[in-house]
Amino acid sequence: MTSLGPSIDQLIEALRCLPGVGPKSAQRMTFHLLERNPDGAQRLSNALSHAINTIQHCQHCRILSETEICSRCSDDSRRQDQLCIVEMPSDVLAIEQATHYKGQFFVLTGHLSPLDGIGPEALGLPQLIEIFENNTIKEVILATNPTVEGEATAHYISQLAHARNIPVTRLAHGIPMGSELEFIDSGTLSHAFSSRESI
Amino acid sequence: MTSLGPSIDQLIEALRCLPGVGPKSAQRMTFHLLERNPDGAQRLSNALSHAINTIQHCQHCRILSETEICSRCSDDSRRQDQLCIVEMPSDVLAIEQATHYKGQFFVLTGHLSPLDGIGPEALGLPQLIEIFENNTIKEVILATNPTVEGEATAHYISQLAHARNIPVTRLAHGIPMGSELEFIDSGTLSHAFSSRESI
Repeated sequence: MTSLGPSIDQLIEALRCLPGVGPKSAQRMTFHLLERNPDGAQRLSNALSHAINTIQHCQHCRILSETEICSRCSDDSRRQDQLCIVEMPSDVLAIEQATHYKGQFFVLTGHLSPLDGIGPEALGLPQLIEIFENNTIKEVILATNPTVEGEATAHYISQLAHARNIPVTRLAHGIPMGSELEFIDSGTLSHAFSSRESI
Repeated sequence: MTSLGPSIDQLIEALRCLPGVGPKSAQRMTFHLLERNPDGAQRLSNALSHAINTIQHCQHCRILSETEICSRCSDDSRRQDQLCIVEMPSDVLAIEQATHYKGQFFVLTGHLSPLDGIGPEALGLPQLIEIFENNTIKEVILATNPTVEGEATAHYISQLAHARNIPVTRLAHGIPMGSELEFIDSGTLSHAFSSRESI
């Protein structure tokens, strides 16, 4: 007998759905919550069930939102002619925190991955094509991750935009600020070298 | 605006009550749950509220339990004359997984820490004294953590037991199995050296 009963086992098992949480961490979290912070556990339970029941995807930009149209898409003060395409909702927050971008967003919620069955429909590309065909977008900014899948997705979308004569840009790739050449991976260094800029 | 609405902010905030989870991890967990695993999130919410409502402390040994008396304390086949005292419920599981111990347990749920207001009452020591005075215990095994507070707590409890003529043992301290002398901290090495055993 090395268990403390089904409720505790269930809670340990349920906590393992969190990313980066294995059996040991889940057990530690369970004991922490039940011994030290039952109020926090109750708040977490309520916040989870409330979020699941209220959060949906914005019908325009597919970001997580509490309303059918998210606050960004319904904000008329934002530029309507720029569209920044990202993989995940967290990328929207990262871009807003780092830049002064005030245009539209479109969240793919992933990248093309045929082997996992993630094709253009799962990423909302038919919806994106509709946006392209509305003729309001003057610049598509591709901000997918610089991974093989992200690049493939960006390439696919850039072709969709080019076919409709919409200019496409993508985030600059190169050496991160504050890093040391010695520790940069060779792919990045090689790309930065061949894309060198005149000053 | 770098938020996705109050429900999401609340969930991010609520996840931070988990040990070892900071703002970035909480945000990552939130997006993971809402985008990828809403079923897991619902299960977690249910498991949390179910556990909070059913789990209590066993009235004998103070371990987390779904019943007033836990399954260990109500198991007559266990030895009644050995009492192993640990700080946390997870220590009970660790000892059961590692050893063949089949006696009683007592869970302090912490250690003496006067500065944090944790005195003998908070650790259930009045209840422990009652157990000592029942005259059934022939050996008290102290398995508190080998920290300053754990040692102080063990010393305090050993005095309570000695006053009632109950023999007290504690877990052996020394060099962990499979380790290398070079990397052992000096406190452990010094203790192991002065407690050397003849072979």
